[in-house]
Amino acid sequence: MKGFSIALQPYQFVMPRKIIFGWGCRQHLAEELPRWGTRVFVICGSRTLERQGVLDHLRRLLERAGVTWQFLTTISREPLVCDVDAVTGQVRSIGLRPGDMLLAVGGGSAIDLAKAVAAMATNSQGESVQDYLENVGRGLKLTQPPLPVVAVPTTAGTGTEATRNAVISSLDPPFKKSLRDDRVVPLVAVVDPELTVTQPPHVTASSGMDAITQLVESFISNRRKPIPQMLAPEGLRLALKWLTTAYREPDHREAREAMAQAALLSGICLANAGLGMAHGIAAALGVVAGIPHGLACAMMLPAALRANRTVVGRELAYLTRHALEKDFPNDDAAVDALIEAVEQLRADLHLPQKLREIGVSQEMIPKIAAGSFGTSMSGNPRPMTQGEIEDILCSLY
Amino acid sequence: MKGFSIALQPYQFVMPRKIIFGWGCRQHLAEELPRWGTRVFVICGSRTLERQGVLDHLRRLLERAGVTWQFLTTISREPLVCDVDAVTGQVRSIGLRPGDMLLAVGGGSAIDLAKAVAAMATNSQGESVQDYLENVGRGLKLTQPPLPVVAVPTTAGTGTEATRNAVISSLDPPFKKSLRDDRVVPLVAVVDPELTVTQPPHVTASSGMDAITQLVESFISNRRKPIPQMLAPEGLRLALKWLTTAYREPDHREAREAMAQAALLSGICLANAGLGMAHGIAAALGVVAGIPHGLACAMMLPAALRANRTVVGRELAYLTRHALEKDFPNDDAAVDALIEAVEQLRADLHLPQKLREIGVSQEMIPKIAAGSFGTSMSGNPRPMTQGEIEDILCSLY
Ligand SMILES: [Zn+2]
Ligand SMILES: [Zn+2]
Repeated sequence: MKGFSIALQPYQFVMPRKIIFGWGCRQHLAEELPRWGTRVFVICGSRTLERQGVLDHLRRLLERAGVTWQFLTTISREPLVCDVDAVTGQVRSIGLRPGDMLLAVGGGSAIDLAKAVAAMATNSQGESVQDYLENVGRGLKLTQPPLPVVAVPTTAGTGTEATRNAVISSLDPPFKKSLRDDRVVPLVAVVDPELTVTQPPHVTASSGMDAITQLVESFISNRRKPIPQMLAPEGLRLALKWLTTAYREPDHREAREAMAQAALLSGICLANAGLGMAHGIAAALGVVAGIPHGLACAMMLPAALRANRTVVGRELAYLTRHALEKDFPNDDAAVDALIEAVEQLRADLHLPQKLREIGVSQEMIPKIAAGSFGTSMSGNPRPMTQGEIEDILCSLY
Repeated sequence: MKGFSIALQPYQFVMPRKIIFGWGCRQHLAEELPRWGTRVFVICGSRTLERQGVLDHLRRLLERAGVTWQFLTTISREPLVCDVDAVTGQVRSIGLRPGDMLLAVGGGSAIDLAKAVAAMATNSQGESVQDYLENVGRGLKLTQPPLPVVAVPTTAGTGTEATRNAVISSLDPPFKKSLRDDRVVPLVAVVDPELTVTQPPHVTASSGMDAITQLVESFISNRRKPIPQMLAPEGLRLALKWLTTAYREPDHREAREAMAQAALLSGICLANAGLGMAHGIAAALGVVAGIPHGLACAMMLPAALRANRTVVGRELAYLTRHALEKDFPNDDAAVDALIEAVEQLRADLHLPQKLREIGVSQEMIPKIAAGSFGTSMSGNPRPMTQGEIEDILCSLY
């Protein structure tokens, strides 16, 4: 409160038509899927899920419910252009019929692959998904609605189950670009925190920091929007309260539930309100130095808070008062507390705090700074120069 | 804050896949609709919309965008079973093809009719929509997904553009029942506050009080859910701040925007979290005494707050602190302030405060009390007896 209110302004807002959330709720797929379609093309996110029998169990459930199960592939790394094209080829050779859907069970990679295949299955003007990716290829747009996607995330972080893009990479030429269309937002997101308990602690930590960064950046973004602003504070409250517990006690139910909800909310928020400089730099750290996304976000978030506090201090203070469930004598004190909470959390999660610890060399810094100015950076509330980004990177070196 | 946090628990959440919000945003239908389909069956909510040229304008926009326009009907009262059956017959005789959608431009009646026709167009096991209504008819369920519905509300109150039911009435036998299925939630809701400026002040007042009651009751309902609890406080803040202005200055843009947003949020909340005793009694006041819904809500809300404050005082205090943007020394003081704000608003809107002023006779009271125990009442946080409801009604007589 204290002088800040959410501003009402024109907006567009997309999210999954239906969310099913809860421990063990993947069971509900058996009642839910037959209500929307008759056959699922299945993409799995890891061999582990197959080995643990999660996939077989779902298959039996769905077949018993009368849904035809058509397995496509298992993917355990970020999807490449050739993966999308190959799996699309599989779908086309099987042939489409009314009532077809994509079902993705896995992390961001599986869900992104499913979104891209869902789009390519019904859109065949291009020869490759590359023709539809931002900035590379021919700039084709989807002319037909994609097949409906049902997303069952097994990690808590990216929020891909609620976003409108699929990140697709290529090795040669090297790029990482988005297929972006709000019709690829999953129709149904089935968020079952129980599926995240097998995540190793370091994945829990970095994907949790990704969710936190997404919640903060979408809240202060210069594309911030009314509904995301109602959701982000609660997502941040849950994540700040429970991430350390989820990291320390992987099968702590309440902590896993909180992180799954925070991640889902972060996806809804970023899809509708954009991000900021931490994500801009994180993208470049990924491309130039191969730094995993969540780790890069954790590294950059405090710096992004410091850089933006002069222009969005009131917003950050409002966010903090809700997230930390505390009042503060003034906005400055609240923002200080938020930065401190994020830094404490990063320490508790044993995440590196200097670029040199994660294999970034000093020579890379200008290239990283130059590569930071993509879509995410354009949402940063304070306009940043390349020189300022370089300075920030040097101070973190 | 102060001891209350939103509880995370298993939930299902549905809302429109896409919301487009803003003054004049109905223009966006021209870009949006071709992305989802190729033909719209159109239901209009009033002759006024036709006379003002709103409908013609949309028709030209959509036809230019390549969407086939198939006008069905104009409805300016609550839809009856026979309306649904007749319009469904029209659609069936035209014949369905892939890419068909329903487009409803109007108040709750037009949107509810569109939802019901969308469901009946693809589900033909029953002979009439009555077979699918709750508690009357044969209890049939939808087996096929309904046609997608695009809703363009012209009133700000019911939030039907975001709910999962269609209210259908019958004169003989007399009833008012819901077709309920979360697949009838509109695919796209285009909320253009400019369309509400022609609402007469008394409609603005009563539909605004409906939205307020829906926001409060869904927040404290015993079926309350995490995401609605993030949305309702902001909806209530907007409505309490702007309803009087919208009532006094019908073309006040900021006030109309705030009320359109509050109504939309109220629909999302009630669809996912249920309601309470004010709505339970309002339903009975409608059936027994023909009292318009919003008027009945306005009459009952303060009594509902008083009856429930002992069990949901913390929740109400949290809601109030956000909605009134003020802190209070304790929860009791906050709830007092909310009740006072609602009563002041009701006075400012010149709404009747006693049942006898609106044509309810003392003899009706037992019948009204008996008829109050439907779905809404089952969400009331404090279990109420019929005797208690009678006492409340007598005190308002
Ligand atoms: Zn991220
Ligand atoms: Zn209502």
